[in-house]
Amino acid sequence: MEIKTGITYPDGFLVSGISCGIKKNKKKDLALIYSTKPSVAGGCFTTNQFKSYSLLLTQKNIKNPIYAILINSGNANTCNGEENWKYTNLIIQKLGELLKIPPSSILMGSTGIIGKVLPYEKIISSLNTLVKNLSDKNSKKAAEAIMTTDTRKKEAEINTGIKGRKKEVVIGGMAKGAGMIYPNMATMLAFLTTDAVISQDALQMSLNEAIEDSFNMISIDNDQSTNDMVICLANGVAGNKTIHLDTPDYFKFSNAMKKICISLAKQIASDGEGAKKFIEVKVKGAWCSKDARRVAKKVVGSNLVKSAIAGGWPNWGRILSSIGSTNARINQRNIEIKLCGIPVYKGNPLHFSEKKIRKLLTKKEIFIEIDLKRGNSEATAWGCDLTEEYVKINRRE
Amino acid sequence: MEIKTGITYPDGFLVSGISCGIKKNKKKDLALIYSTKPSVAGGCFTTNQFKSYSLLLTQKNIKNPIYAILINSGNANTCNGEENWKYTNLIIQKLGELLKIPPSSILMGSTGIIGKVLPYEKIISSLNTLVKNLSDKNSKKAAEAIMTTDTRKKEAEINTGIKGRKKEVVIGGMAKGAGMIYPNMATMLAFLTTDAVISQDALQMSLNEAIEDSFNMISIDNDQSTNDMVICLANGVAGNKTIHLDTPDYFKFSNAMKKICISLAKQIASDGEGAKKFIEVKVKGAWCSKDARRVAKKVVGSNLVKSAIAGGWPNWGRILSSIGSTNARINQRNIEIKLCGIPVYKGNPLHFSEKKIRKLLTKKEIFIEIDLKRGNSEATAWGCDLTEEYVKINRRE
Repeated sequence: MEIKTGITYPDGFLVSGISCGIKKNKKKDLALIYSTKPSVAGGCFTTNQFKSYSLLLTQKNIKNPIYAILINSGNANTCNGEENWKYTNLIIQKLGELLKIPPSSILMGSTGIIGKVLPYEKIISSLNTLVKNLSDKNSKKAAEAIMTTDTRKKEAEINTGIKGRKKEVVIGGMAKGAGMIYPNMATMLAFLTTDAVISQDALQMSLNEAIEDSFNMISIDNDQSTNDMVICLANGVAGNKTIHLDTPDYFKFSNAMKKICISLAKQIASDGEGAKKFIEVKVKGAWCSKDARRVAKKVVGSNLVKSAIAGGWPNWGRILSSIGSTNARINQRNIEIKLCGIPVYKGNPLHFSEKKIRKLLTKKEIFIEIDLKRGNSEATAWGCDLTEEYVKINRRE
Repeated sequence: MEIKTGITYPDGFLVSGISCGIKKNKKKDLALIYSTKPSVAGGCFTTNQFKSYSLLLTQKNIKNPIYAILINSGNANTCNGEENWKYTNLIIQKLGELLKIPPSSILMGSTGIIGKVLPYEKIISSLNTLVKNLSDKNSKKAAEAIMTTDTRKKEAEINTGIKGRKKEVVIGGMAKGAGMIYPNMATMLAFLTTDAVISQDALQMSLNEAIEDSFNMISIDNDQSTNDMVICLANGVAGNKTIHLDTPDYFKFSNAMKKICISLAKQIASDGEGAKKFIEVKVKGAWCSKDARRVAKKVVGSNLVKSAIAGGWPNWGRILSSIGSTNARINQRNIEIKLCGIPVYKGNPLHFSEKKIRKLLTKKEIFIEIDLKRGNSEATAWGCDLTEEYVKINRRE
């Protein structure tokens, strides 16, 4: 028997994940999140000028009380012709009838190949099975159904420390990523559920803040896919005192939200296409937080740094060059770099045991620490190495 | 016997290229360009905050009358400790003595690995041979000596149509590139020579304008290596009427300058590390030229577009997604994309023969045309596909 993990960690959420035939070999490709109570929803969306019809529908409905999120993988529902807006609405209409909820209370997410007609008939004819399979034990099936080139499911759950009527307020989540994430355009989807009683603006703000330090540190703002979205549903089942922006519990809630988003973001980063190693770049001593973010993201996203790490080559020159290519304020004469905990540069190259560092670079988790020596701001970014496998995956369908 | 090509195409320039032992296996790694007359020099340099000591020396001397440019490959002379500034000056001092010219009339360029002490003794002990080998028939040897992971020499020459005392004013050039160029940080070096009589500001301006439409269309401004430089020497041997910014010949000169820079830039793009295919992205119908450039560079630099082309996969969705990820003004309902001359998208997906397009995608040169349908500005960017080979090259030294 499966236990309550991920998006079913909070009470009041039933989910399912099945195969409807979009993907080959009966791989799961359709997921449903159903909230037994009307939920408040918060969402963040791609800045790409081309947007998936599913995403447009979600943006249209998100301020309504929400009962369900339908997610398909294998088809992006983007740039595939205007008739697909009709198909999207047909699907939602049908799902509304089955769940006995208004179509305007349903959100939708899609991920997969751009420009292909949405196989709406396959989806519609599977909705009945999808609804029948709803259960609070199916979170792993749902997490599997949203995968594309991901090699593993991504789930997380966290307690907030906020007292509810009978038990603590909690948050659960699932995500999909893959692609090289940054600097490119793999779709990043994340869905979060919570039993908190929270106002819409407090939920949205906590999501905005959390995303800044988590998903945005693995993907560049201006370079998002046509389908990226992060959605959180709050169904209020915990019966806690309503969380507002100015209530003390807001801090606890947004703190937990940040932690769960960072956990999902790191899972996405370490599962980049073809990735063999997870990379964490920690920047401190920055003039401002923007500088810190900029440098951390630049270094973690550099193809040259990523491929050096793939090869276990302690080429700190590429890290330095990458830092210098930003316009962040730096103290050139004192800037410090540590690779796997070993100081390699401090204004000048340092002597280090290349043998020792090469051994550390064979590990699965690689840490790069940079001290810009110009201020007190910090930021951390996450990514993965660049391997031949990445290119193989992206050469063809 | 070698003929006068590349940087020896204009009269009055002697060059040589030899091995001094920085690279293994006696590969050429040291080049010298010597002008028999004092030259006016123009230069454009990297915006990277970390700069090579060779580049700093060049920036210091460039406004002086210039007699020589020394270039080494195999060592970037960057972030390798402050004593290397001394070594750089020692080398220039010694070269000045041999050539009987002031050290302040010498420029220097370096390319190779960052953070290694410059083997100045090897360089200094080879200067004598380098000077002895000076000839106007050695341009290919010089072009070879500046290569790193380049697989072929890059040379170009052009006539300007401007009358000199006895013959036409001409321009010659050589370059090195490799790396994936954009979005990363392979060093791009280009050296141009001309026999034109031209003022320093006219030379500099023509270089600035040419670079904008050539080298800058293969590499992103904010993401340059620590060593990038383009230098042009004008020795006045042609004896033409001096070219100023406001004389009619300026247009002819800068037009030729743009053409030769585009030729070198395209050679660099098609020889990216591991590249099997050359990609040209032509954008028209842009609101302004900045929008056109932004879109062209974004598409040509997208790892997903580049790897799809490597695999011969007509995934136009990745092109569209890449366009949408910029903030360029576009007409979403009319935007047009042609791949290898075949229309694949026009506001909606178009029907096309996948078989035919896949056949065209096996060619060595791939053309992507984009019409944003928002204005009259145009731009063209160049790049190459992304292959497994690229990753292999960059995994280790």
